[in-house]
Amino acid sequence: MNSIGYLTEEQIVTELLTYRREFHRYPESGWTEFRTTAAIVKRLTELGYHITMGEQATRKAEMMGVPDANTLSRHQERAIAQGADAAIVAQMTGGHTGLWADLNCGDGPTIALRFDIDANDITEARDSTHRPAKEGFASENQGVMHACGHDGHAAVGLVLAELLAKDKSRWQGNIRLIFQPAEEGVRGARAMAAAGALDNVDYIFGFHLGFQAERTGVLVASTGDFLATTKLNVWYEGVPSHAGAYPEKGKNALLAACTAALNLHAIPRHSGGATRITVGTLKAGQGRNITPPNAYFELETRGVTSELDEYMRLEAERIIRAAALTWDVQYRMEIAGGTKSGESSPDMAELVEREAASMPVFTAVRKRSSFGASEDFAHFMSTVQERGGRGGYIQVGADLASGHHTSRFDFDECSMLHATELLYKVTKAVLAK
Amino acid sequence: MNSIGYLTEEQIVTELLTYRREFHRYPESGWTEFRTTAAIVKRLTELGYHITMGEQATRKAEMMGVPDANTLSRHQERAIAQGADAAIVAQMTGGHTGLWADLNCGDGPTIALRFDIDANDITEARDSTHRPAKEGFASENQGVMHACGHDGHAAVGLVLAELLAKDKSRWQGNIRLIFQPAEEGVRGARAMAAAGALDNVDYIFGFHLGFQAERTGVLVASTGDFLATTKLNVWYEGVPSHAGAYPEKGKNALLAACTAALNLHAIPRHSGGATRITVGTLKAGQGRNITPPNAYFELETRGVTSELDEYMRLEAERIIRAAALTWDVQYRMEIAGGTKSGESSPDMAELVEREAASMPVFTAVRKRSSFGASEDFAHFMSTVQERGGRGGYIQVGADLASGHHTSRFDFDECSMLHATELLYKVTKAVLAK
Amino acid sequence: MNSIGYLTEEQIVTELLTYRREFHRYPESGWTEFRTTAAIVKRLTELGYHITMGEQATRKAEMMGVPDANTLSRHQERAIAQGADAAIVAQMTGGHTGLWADLNCGDGPTIALRFDIDANDITEARDSTHRPAKEGFASENQGVMHACGHDGHAAVGLVLAELLAKDKSRWQGNIRLIFQPAEEGVRGARAMAAAGALDNVDYIFGFHLGFQAERTGVLVASTGDFLATTKLNVWYEGVPSHAGAYPEKGKNALLAACTAALNLHAIPRHSGGATRITVGTLKAGQGRNITPPNAYFELETRGVTSELDEYMRLEAERIIRAAALTWDVQYRMEIAGGTKSGESSPDMAELVEREAASMPVFTAVRKRSSFGASEDFAHFMSTVQERGGRGGYIQVGADLASGHHTSRFDFDECSMLHATELLYKVTKAVLAK
Amino acid sequence: MNSIGYLTEEQIVTELLTYRREFHRYPESGWTEFRTTAAIVKRLTELGYHITMGEQATRKAEMMGVPDANTLSRHQERAIAQGADAAIVAQMTGGHTGLWADLNCGDGPTIALRFDIDANDITEARDSTHRPAKEGFASENQGVMHACGHDGHAAVGLVLAELLAKDKSRWQGNIRLIFQPAEEGVRGARAMAAAGALDNVDYIFGFHLGFQAERTGVLVASTGDFLATTKLNVWYEGVPSHAGAYPEKGKNALLAACTAALNLHAIPRHSGGATRITVGTLKAGQGRNITPPNAYFELETRGVTSELDEYMRLEAERIIRAAALTWDVQYRMEIAGGTKSGESSPDMAELVEREAASMPVFTAVRKRSSFGASEDFAHFMSTVQERGGRGGYIQVGADLASGHHTSRFDFDECSMLHATELLYKVTKAVLAK
Repeated sequence: MNSIGYLTEEQIVTELLTYRREFHRYPESGWTEFRTTAAIVKRLTELGYHITMGEQATRKAEMMGVPDANTLSRHQERAIAQGADAAIVAQMTGGHTGLWADLNCGDGPTIALRFDIDANDITEARDSTHRPAKEGFASENQGVMHACGHDGHAAVGLVLAELLAKDKSRWQGNIRLIFQPAEEGVRGARAMAAAGALDNVDYIFGFHLGFQAERTGVLVASTGDFLATTKLNVWYEGVPSHAGAYPEKGKNALLAACTAALNLHAIPRHSGGATRITVGTLKAGQGRNITPPNAYFELETRGVTSELDEYMRLEAERIIRAAALTWDVQYRMEIAGGTKSGESSPDMAELVEREAASMPVFTAVRKRSSFGASEDFAHFMSTVQERGGRGGYIQVGADLASGHHTSRFDFDECSMLHATELLYKVTKAVLAK
Repeated sequence: MNSIGYLTEEQIVTELLTYRREFHRYPESGWTEFRTTAAIVKRLTELGYHITMGEQATRKAEMMGVPDANTLSRHQERAIAQGADAAIVAQMTGGHTGLWADLNCGDGPTIALRFDIDANDITEARDSTHRPAKEGFASENQGVMHACGHDGHAAVGLVLAELLAKDKSRWQGNIRLIFQPAEEGVRGARAMAAAGALDNVDYIFGFHLGFQAERTGVLVASTGDFLATTKLNVWYEGVPSHAGAYPEKGKNALLAACTAALNLHAIPRHSGGATRITVGTLKAGQGRNITPPNAYFELETRGVTSELDEYMRLEAERIIRAAALTWDVQYRMEIAGGTKSGESSPDMAELVEREAASMPVFTAVRKRSSFGASEDFAHFMSTVQERGGRGGYIQVGADLASGHHTSRFDFDECSMLHATELLYKVTKAVLAK
Repeated sequence: MNSIGYLTEEQIVTELLTYRREFHRYPESGWTEFRTTAAIVKRLTELGYHITMGEQATRKAEMMGVPDANTLSRHQERAIAQGADAAIVAQMTGGHTGLWADLNCGDGPTIALRFDIDANDITEARDSTHRPAKEGFASENQGVMHACGHDGHAAVGLVLAELLAKDKSRWQGNIRLIFQPAEEGVRGARAMAAAGALDNVDYIFGFHLGFQAERTGVLVASTGDFLATTKLNVWYEGVPSHAGAYPEKGKNALLAACTAALNLHAIPRHSGGATRITVGTLKAGQGRNITPPNAYFELETRGVTSELDEYMRLEAERIIRAAALTWDVQYRMEIAGGTKSGESSPDMAELVEREAASMPVFTAVRKRSSFGASEDFAHFMSTVQERGGRGGYIQVGADLASGHHTSRFDFDECSMLHATELLYKVTKAVLAK
Repeated sequence: MNSIGYLTEEQIVTELLTYRREFHRYPESGWTEFRTTAAIVKRLTELGYHITMGEQATRKAEMMGVPDANTLSRHQERAIAQGADAAIVAQMTGGHTGLWADLNCGDGPTIALRFDIDANDITEARDSTHRPAKEGFASENQGVMHACGHDGHAAVGLVLAELLAKDKSRWQGNIRLIFQPAEEGVRGARAMAAAGALDNVDYIFGFHLGFQAERTGVLVASTGDFLATTKLNVWYEGVPSHAGAYPEKGKNALLAACTAALNLHAIPRHSGGATRITVGTLKAGQGRNITPPNAYFELETRGVTSELDEYMRLEAERIIRAAALTWDVQYRMEIAGGTKSGESSPDMAELVEREAASMPVFTAVRKRSSFGASEDFAHFMSTVQERGGRGGYIQVGADLASGHHTSRFDFDECSMLHATELLYKVTKAVLAK
């Protein structure tokens, strides 16, 4: 096969590379994807999609782990300086990045495709053995890098948008392309779902380049065992005191945090299935000889079902409160992220497998893999399923230069073509007249 | 000197030995001193003292660490079977042991002398190298033993009562002999003081055979640095669960107790002076494979001042409450004992030293020693001082067969004579016309 | 069907009740089953079985949680006083209870059937609502009770032994009846396997009355997800000190145990599957005002595979060692029990299901249940499977008066008939000419 | 009195202000006092003192908490850029700042006077309500500030050097002026003493402006109860792992640090006197979802005697080692500072009190205060006393704009005059012909 819809593979690859490398060059982390969102909005508007963005696309109360207002406005300026349309950027004030775009093709089911667009807080490698550096598209934004392939996901989304729009007459139903912000830290899906991104959705698909499909040619047709997770930030505030002169006057936030950390890790295992808890970071104290008046720590809970994660979260919150009482310190707790558990619908796995069968590039197809980690897509998929719909998460094989979330991450760009074609076929299978 | 008041030393020694060995043979631990109290009441009544006993002598709400009703009533029966007057024993139902006895000698100050009468929960040695066993006056009460010399204290009290009563015409003022129950565990003084034992008291003295005066001939004229202390019992109650099958259903009382114990020992030191905390015993759990639904532990706090002990107690109570919250278990806390800090009045130290100077038996006199532990007498003494009175705690030297609170404890009985004489002189110095 | 082999159901029930009630009356806990073993040995010898017992049947080094020599010898005397054959009891000195018995029926496979014979450390209810008390066969041994149905298991074993022996000519192969001591606490299987109980065994079956088959008529044809487990006892020994006077001189074993307990429960979860850890009991300290010089605690680890249990055990041992170092106390650790994980062979599940199909009494047959707990049979079964054999664990439904391991436990004795018949059929299916 | 030695008070004040404000403008923290040392060396050389500096003045092996080589060399460059003599600075490579200076005045005792010269890691206030900012001598070195008055101490040292040198003919004996680096964190005295700073010293005096003499006119003639202290830095290194996917592969350094912190604070109190322990800062972890592979914490122990501090340090080291074993992580420990306990010699207190009596400015003289904290001077003083000499620590009253170690610290500069005069008189009392 040499073309998908009305474009040749060569044309498609050219577009994919252009988009991907542009996104790679200007990576933006969660809730600061101003330039990326603006570029997508512009292109999809040209293609005739109906755009939902800004406060309509992400419900404020459900946005988790949002940077402070100063940081956000600095990033808006940065995005404009890097070429973003100022009028579009203005609509995202407050961190309301991301969007969804509808292509209404008459009566029929609604299919949603999710593309995540945010980058990682990682400093990209700069030497010439790293292709993006060598070929001039490495990150221009210090400390931020597309190290998880979301640049590729967004590129696939834009090219797919073009292909689907040009073939509009062939579909019956509605196509919704969801460009999700803040997938890292699983902070964005909940806000989009709450704003209506899943209204009337009958089918939803997400995909990832690489990951468990760790080389080009592999296809994981569906994915399950997404762990539900909750991300918590905790602050303790005590009272400082000279630890030599007046030890009794201090209220020790460091010991409160240590008591919490130890007891949190001792939450009982659950007979209902796998759970996790980790206090990943802890910072406390102001000086060696001062009763530590401050402590901050970040933790996460997980469960193979949302109920199990909820069990962990409730236990954790009580222990955190009790540790504050133990050392007579004040506390503040914030949910900084979280997503549901998930499992692809079995019939969607079969549909994907069937469509993939016609693509010779996929030499190794696995029907299902167990994810054992968390993905914000699970929030979308589980919500659609709870409402009676179906969903699937596909992993499209890609040779990797280095693992996900490392400073030398890079992937075989051909995988974008494979993903584009497969998603086109899946959409066709659902919506074709 | 060959006589004290109207008795010769020989007569006195005979009486002291008779009383002491009788008390030694029937030891009774705190709040079960039914036989001992009855014997004292009988003798003092004969001598013309006015007795205050039963509910008039110990205020119920302030009695700490009282055995349950069954145990008390079993001990009342035991006391009667061992010769106690049933009518007197009946007045002590509920554990109201102990008494005070007044000898009113006209206008003048009131001097109180405190004698503690309870025994220890220790099993006495039975072999012939242990004099009480060899000479036939070892404990008849299994698991209870006079291993701290309170048998000797009570004997001194009775003989002194006789001497003072016979010389009644020589005194002006009031003599109050306080025979205190439950000194071990510092559980009894508070209840007596609350019932009025110290009303109108201007001077109070207590004494101990041996202790820091570790051989016959030594005299410690006054004692200070008594530690204030609080004794706490704590119960946690959780929920059992099969630890293999349903670990999440259990509420773990053992982990609550461990969290409490660790954090209790981490209470900050205090710049105001020495403090102590010890979780001395802990018992938790029902079986290896069951989430422990129960835990019980005993702790004590101490402070070189009552304020410091209070600081420790308040910290401890909060931590105990917080550990219950940590593991979502119920808790109950009980104050099982406690006493104030204390320091002998300097002028009383001088008075004692002066009187002792006329007794050649005291070859080594120390004006003051630092106690560094707790004594229920401190509650009496500090209360008298707070009300403007004065007090002193004397240690009368005695050769010891083995240390206090051991199964082979025994003391040189001559020390009782020395104590009797010294207390007679002290009383005379205060009340003589 | 009115008979099994050469006995009528009525005869069988009569025998089963006689044996079961006799065993129930004289319950013996792990490694003290002297009377029970002697009775079984005597009967099986009469029936022509070849007996392996004493040191030949349980390898000393692998016997876990054995009582001390005094206790064992007291129980030998007790057993003889309760009618056991003194000569047979003498062969079990040192706690070598249990036996296996072979019935060689010519060339063919070897099938082993496991019957556990020990009782629980529970005091049996005595009132007339408890049938064993009402009907006069309640425990004669204070504090010991057949509260898990092993009395019924042993009875089934003896009747089955009779049925199989009488029909000897119908079999080709070897029948091995394993009467296992010390199943409670999973302490006995390892010692029997090490002594050769599984040599040449091709098939092995075990069963339980009641449990997950919680009413008469239910059959669980096979069982899996037995948790591997290790039972550990830990002693800490520190140094006592007066906690008020010399806190710094103590070495605190209680705090060592608390530090261990908290950290043990914080061992990370494992991505390989379910694990468990519980410190089930803890006892420490000698008095409220003494630095606790002693601590003893009992814990268990579990894993859904033996490797996972091993992971937990190794982590636990290091933490226990480290907690001793933390508080500068000595420690001693002892493995008090343990067994492997296990999963019935699928083809054995089918065989059992097939045979049960011909028994109308089983109105509710489940092919497999997930056990989620530990059983010493798993050690036998997994060992046979590792050597190429097959095995299955059957749960035979029984109405229960009260749950397993409670003082009012009792079961519908008809279930013994069902178990006897089913095991007869299973044996026949394997060995019939 | 209008002059001290050959200078008028007005001349002295002018010099003191010049020196102090110059030092204040160029503050240098411990072991980077290159500019300060160079300035002092230059002036004392002019005055005829014999200088001991560089590796001769601070023994390398005993220098604690020294910055890394890069930092030191950067500071050497900075000092030269700020006017320091490059040749002098070169002699201090490796952080060998500080010096001592001898004025040999013939036979007689040696008196040492200690002046500490380092600044604090504090950012100075910049607004006009802060006098140093308003009058143009606020810190030029970002993040460093003279917030403890050592600028004043150094100024007093230089003016006193001049006065004593001009009056050289009046003295018999040796005058040694010790300008100590790295007093903050008590890191410098040990290295100077080890290099010989106290050889042949018979009398040693140190002083502080302000502190417990919290307003101008107060004099604390002597100081005791300096706490011995040890400063420890601890690193734990474990193994990172994805906390959701492979929790069992991580080695958790954060939990090791928490276990250490809790147990460190639970080290028993000591009957020998006051002790302290504080884990003042803790930083651990790399990300919320990664098993924390790193932890770093800073702690300090204290004791009212050096033996008590040693007790705390040894307990702490064992607990730190054990916590590493608990979580199977590597550890590294470093002593970052430490000093002895101390008590001024009573006869030196009298000498100072006597001299102060002739200075009307001192309207409130306290003979002694209990310090209850640590000072590196205690190392010097105790060492001299151990060798048979005598010492004293004086606190010279100063009105303060804000407390020591705060960003708005400033002091009444007149106090420098009072200190200069008092030290002149003390020296005269010891050495005058």
